[in-house]
Amino acid sequence: MPGAHRAAGPHRPHPSSPEEPPAPEDQDLLLAAAYVSDAQYNRNVPFETSPQAVRLYHFYNHWTVRAATYFFIWVDLALALFEEPALFPLPFLATSIAEVLCLTAFFGRLVHFAKVTPQMVFWKDTKNICIMVTIVLTLIDLITYGSLEAVNIHGVRWSRALRPVFLINFPESRQIRRAFRSIRNTLPDILYVFLLFIFSVLMFSLMALKLFGDRGLKTVEGLPYFTNILDIAFELYVLVTTANSPDVMMPAYEFNWWYSLYFITYIIINTYIFMSVFLAVVYNNYRKHLKNEIRTLAYLKRHKMIAAFNILKVKVGTEFVVKEAQWRQLAKIVAPDISSSHLELLLRISDEGQKGYVDKKNFLRLADLLNIQVVTINIKRHPLEAWMPRVYQSSPSLLVQRMVRHRIFVWVYDVIILINAIFIALDEKNPLISYAEWLFLSLYILEILLKLYTYEPRAYFGRKQFWNWFDMLIIIAALVATVANTTIQSARKYNSQQILDIVLILRILRLLRVIVSIQRFRVIVTTLINIGPTMLTFGGLVLVVYYVFAVIGMEVFHGKVRFFDPSSTSPDALVCGNPALKDSAFARGRYCRNNFNDLAASLVLLTELTVVNQWHILADGFALVTHQAAKLYFVGFHVVVVILIVNIFIAFILEAFFVAYSLEKSEVETAIERKIQELGVGVQEEEVQDGKLIDNVDAKDSGLSGDDGDNKRKALKGLYFRIASKKYKTVDALLQQMFESEIAPEDEGPSLEEILNFSPSDIHPKNPSFENSA
Amino acid sequence: MPGAHRAAGPHRPHPSSPEEPPAPEDQDLLLAAAYVSDAQYNRNVPFETSPQAVRLYHFYNHWTVRAATYFFIWVDLALALFEEPALFPLPFLATSIAEVLCLTAFFGRLVHFAKVTPQMVFWKDTKNICIMVTIVLTLIDLITYGSLEAVNIHGVRWSRALRPVFLINFPESRQIRRAFRSIRNTLPDILYVFLLFIFSVLMFSLMALKLFGDRGLKTVEGLPYFTNILDIAFELYVLVTTANSPDVMMPAYEFNWWYSLYFITYIIINTYIFMSVFLAVVYNNYRKHLKNEIRTLAYLKRHKMIAAFNILKVKVGTEFVVKEAQWRQLAKIVAPDISSSHLELLLRISDEGQKGYVDKKNFLRLADLLNIQVVTINIKRHPLEAWMPRVYQSSPSLLVQRMVRHRIFVWVYDVIILINAIFIALDEKNPLISYAEWLFLSLYILEILLKLYTYEPRAYFGRKQFWNWFDMLIIIAALVATVANTTIQSARKYNSQQILDIVLILRILRLLRVIVSIQRFRVIVTTLINIGPTMLTFGGLVLVVYYVFAVIGMEVFHGKVRFFDPSSTSPDALVCGNPALKDSAFARGRYCRNNFNDLAASLVLLTELTVVNQWHILADGFALVTHQAAKLYFVGFHVVVVILIVNIFIAFILEAFFVAYSLEKSEVETAIERKIQELGVGVQEEEVQDGKLIDNVDAKDSGLSGDDGDNKRKALKGLYFRIASKKYKTVDALLQQMFESEIAPEDEGPSLEEILNFSPSDIHPKNPSFENSA
Repeated sequence: MPGAHRAAGPHRPHPSSPEEPPAPEDQDLLLAAAYVSDAQYNRNVPFETSPQAVRLYHFYNHWTVRAATYFFIWVDLALALFEEPALFPLPFLATSIAEVLCLTAFFGRLVHFAKVTPQMVFWKDTKNICIMVTIVLTLIDLITYGSLEAVNIHGVRWSRALRPVFLINFPESRQIRRAFRSIRNTLPDILYVFLLFIFSVLMFSLMALKLFGDRGLKTVEGLPYFTNILDIAFELYVLVTTANSPDVMMPAYEFNWWYSLYFITYIIINTYIFMSVFLAVVYNNYRKHLKNEIRTLAYLKRHKMIAAFNILKVKVGTEFVVKEAQWRQLAKIVAPDISSSHLELLLRISDEGQKGYVDKKNFLRLADLLNIQVVTINIKRHPLEAWMPRVYQSSPSLLVQRMVRHRIFVWVYDVIILINAIFIALDEKNPLISYAEWLFLSLYILEILLKLYTYEPRAYFGRKQFWNWFDMLIIIAALVATVANTTIQSARKYNSQQILDIVLILRILRLLRVIVSIQRFRVIVTTLINIGPTMLTFGGLVLVVYYVFAVIGMEVFHGKVRFFDPSSTSPDALVCGNPALKDSAFARGRYCRNNFNDLAASLVLLTELTVVNQWHILADGFALVTHQAAKLYFVGFHVVVVILIVNIFIAFILEAFFVAYSLEKSEVETAIERKIQELGVGVQEEEVQDGKLIDNVDAKDSGLSGDDGDNKRKALKGLYFRIASKKYKTVDALLQQMFESEIAPEDEGPSLEEILNFSPSDIHPKNPSFENSA
Repeated sequence: MPGAHRAAGPHRPHPSSPEEPPAPEDQDLLLAAAYVSDAQYNRNVPFETSPQAVRLYHFYNHWTVRAATYFFIWVDLALALFEEPALFPLPFLATSIAEVLCLTAFFGRLVHFAKVTPQMVFWKDTKNICIMVTIVLTLIDLITYGSLEAVNIHGVRWSRALRPVFLINFPESRQIRRAFRSIRNTLPDILYVFLLFIFSVLMFSLMALKLFGDRGLKTVEGLPYFTNILDIAFELYVLVTTANSPDVMMPAYEFNWWYSLYFITYIIINTYIFMSVFLAVVYNNYRKHLKNEIRTLAYLKRHKMIAAFNILKVKVGTEFVVKEAQWRQLAKIVAPDISSSHLELLLRISDEGQKGYVDKKNFLRLADLLNIQVVTINIKRHPLEAWMPRVYQSSPSLLVQRMVRHRIFVWVYDVIILINAIFIALDEKNPLISYAEWLFLSLYILEILLKLYTYEPRAYFGRKQFWNWFDMLIIIAALVATVANTTIQSARKYNSQQILDIVLILRILRLLRVIVSIQRFRVIVTTLINIGPTMLTFGGLVLVVYYVFAVIGMEVFHGKVRFFDPSSTSPDALVCGNPALKDSAFARGRYCRNNFNDLAASLVLLTELTVVNQWHILADGFALVTHQAAKLYFVGFHVVVVILIVNIFIAFILEAFFVAYSLEKSEVETAIERKIQELGVGVQEEEVQDGKLIDNVDAKDSGLSGDDGDNKRKALKGLYFRIASKKYKTVDALLQQMFESEIAPEDEGPSLEEILNFSPSDIHPKNPSFENSA
């Protein structure tokens, strides 16, 4: 492992003396920076320590290269839109050239990675092997398919189902990989419960066959009821998903009241208890593995920071430290965009005694310090004040500003929005109402203008002022769309449907504003928005599974069901173009649009299957047009997506809420805040949220000006900081914080080998305590 | 509080000297016993300490009186079966006399309670007030209804909805009350999320109205699609429950692919995210309140045990202790059925040094000691061995015994059961197969006989040998039912349907045996069975809610929908006897049997509503026959049962599994086990489970016989003990154990006043730690 080779400290002579700061190209600094930025972003990529490799490694992690990789991954996945069965057909040659291009890019990325990683590590990593095998398989498939196509034989493009491998296996997709790992680790536990569950379904099926088979009962469609064990097993499996309740029970229930008890027992045991047990098993494993990963990450971070320290350390007195100059350069390499005032603040925190060097304990916090979003607020006057101070400070102008800052201003606009909502609900055909819409729009624009007049614009559109941005964007978009629509209307005498739809949605989204102005609701909404980013991980996970199922579905069911325009009078339209569907519930429900004829339709269909309701009708329909075995595809999808993935999603939401409930500031954050307060450059978060920012800052500013004795304050004058809201933290970050606060600062952690081999069972608490069990 | 008055210790002179054990009527002993048995059963009933009251209190807690109370509660609830609309109609006079009888019993119970409880405490308890008010209201209702009926005016029996109050408010139903308290405490948190959720549904409804309202789209039934905001809101609420997916989306989706995104967004936000948030909020509150209750219970227990100790303590040397004789008598009063050997064992554990008295620390454990089920195994020879030792010990007999004990014996029977399953699945009409059933039955009986021959019968049918009992009962029941059926068949030449059904179910239940013989499955099944008793609490909770809704439903919807026999040819049968249902999905789905015409039908209907699927069709049907506002009843039911109760159920299962995962032996259990092992009278649980009990006991027995020097062992000779499986513990017990192991033995806990005012927020961990957050 690279860190180990350098652990003895800087063994090469420094190119320059400590007083003369070394050139930024200095290899040691670059290597240390690589470690620190790895620690900062929780990366886990071992790299060679040769100068060449470190430079390449920095390039490997550069955002442009990573963005390019993602671009190619998405292009590769999107190809399914253009290949047969296509939404937008393109010739095979075009898509195959695009695919080869993507493969080349992936291969290049892999070669790049191989160059920076020690040989042994590279070949031991299954991720790399996976990518290589997939590239080779895809090429083979492309060639075979192309040659077959050339002689007019239609082959199967099976390698398309492998495309998500690229999304999963690049080091950037750690979250998705973790979810998959969590699923894989849960499988043995789930398997036994699943077998028991299947056994229970089969036992009930046998009972149903014996109880109802010979009764001569008929379903509502007039078909024989519960006469074939396989059909019964399928019906009862569907009942677990509740999709055919209560229809499946009605014939027996009509025959005899007592038979309803059979179904109620079945539902209690299989739908309620077993499904909850699945959730419990998935959730328990999710927690266990989450904890394990967090622990591994935390120790790896510590390990890398120690490696970086050992490279840069010099001996001062009895202890090893890092010189201020080197520390500055390191921070600049790791975070090139950091403002000098922010850097100054971090240095003040790290070098508390102003001794000109940073000790080990403070150095180890560097990655965390860089991770904490400190919002730098430049205290500047309102541009209008600078431009024409007399007018801006005049009494009418001050009155306007006081008005805008008043609570009543918010309330008035809440009332306006509600009136607007009523107008929207009313009929739009009335010209008066469509004129009213213009009135509302101008009122909203007036509001934004007034606010910009009152508040300093850069503070108003600060990076974390989510709702201000939201307001602004909604209104501007609505304005643009309305104007565009009016132009089109007057020019061509017809409304563009798309634009009208967008205008409508924008208008209604404005209603969200009312919710946000109520404190209780804002908290919930913020928590939900906070969960958002991690939910995108689940988006990735779901996308991977959907993509694989969609590709398989398109190969198997493509063209079997056709959708006719609703206005079509063709008799085929009633049976979705397939006579096998005559009299089926599928055709009766007008489900023809639910088909596998292109990627978009397939994804919508898979979403419907995830929602579960009526999935048996869809499964039956596709079984009718192909073969009864097609139901296995649908059952398989249910097991994978609903039993595993939806449960992991629920586990994730539960965990996120529980962590949010026990939310606390981290030690490092507290240290920064204390320092900010000490330096007198702090701004309370609440003040900013209430829109009183400028007032307070102004007040503090004048306070400061009177206190010139302190040169520290002078250095930072005109700048204010605050810790960005902790509400926007992810669950991972919060958990890692908690874990880190439990490792002693002196603790160097286990060896790297041990860290990488942590297993979830290690951290199973030896003494389950009351607090953590209930 | 009573304990406080007596805390100074026994201030009355003892009626007899410590050597002469006091008479069992001794007031102090009775009072102490009341405290100990309260602590043992986690009761929380303050009582007067006067001799009269204590005696009455023991009577109040006597099982016969409690059973009688339950009997009357059930009779009262069951009255709904006999009242209009009745399953088994009885005249109003009969049901009202029964009801008055029940009310008298409840009143009597209340008076009894008032006699033993201090006045102030009695009147401060809302439970008692609730019961009194309900009794009075019920009487008023009975009189009004009776008088109106007398002049032929049909009134509403509204007080019937209050009947579950009795079930909830008697002190015995603590678990149900806790569930209700948990719901009540969750309400404020849930409310805000719910309002936000409703706001979101309304916003989407408005959007849907604007997007789809003017398109002229038609649903599959040919009705206008999304044109009325109220209908849209209802449809979208139904979509949250997934019951009308994907039908509700199809018209828009057919019109334009992009509109599917609207529905997918809606489902992600409202179905997945909001429903998970509801679960998270309910679960979080459930945990918090569970912990609080457990803590209260644990401290109350400690408090009561200290009160009991203070009553009985005498000074020996420097410390207060309880004399052995008094301890024995106390234990005998608290647990009259305890065997003398068991008592001896407990005394050995409590009085470790054999000093003739029990010190405070050990005395406080008495309630726990009594709670631990120690199975006393009388090591007796097999009766046959005693009766005819020569034959039983002969080599053919020993061979048979060895055979039965062999693993292969189990496997052979597993195979037989599987073959039996295949035969069951085959057609029963074949006479060969119905003869085979006799063969299987005799094989099973042979198995049981062989086992009884090999194992000591009392050990084989030990209290905790669940599966042996299960086997035996299934086989005997099958035998009886089969014989009964054959008799009826040969006598009357026709099969009794009920008996045949029972035989069938019994036969198929036998298959469970195969599962249980596989270790991995047995663990899961045992956990599920373990959860069983607490699940009954939920049964109680569900019953209460169902009962209230059923009574309301019967008053509102009674007779509106009628069920005709499937063979009926009446044209009314097609519209469930109500022309308003013509062409409705309700009638088309043949849902006539789902009605509120009697209690049984109502309960089945409510179960269907709980399962959710198709509930909108039921709601629509009943809205058609009454009024659109009837839908509120169904939406209300959904909110209460699915959003609150089902989520609490899931929370409970999750919690039960997590606690089971971190399961550990309690300190007290360990102490008992150590003592049992020390005395050499232990039997490993696994040995018993594997059916090797007798072998091992024999071996140990002979080992013991050679060691006659130890008189302790002699005293207990011929007896073996083991701790009953901890797998059969409830979640509550496990959690309480964990909490207690965290209170120091010296800790006397907070004052009674403080204990009773614990609030969940007190125990919110001040320092959330990594272990308990993830």
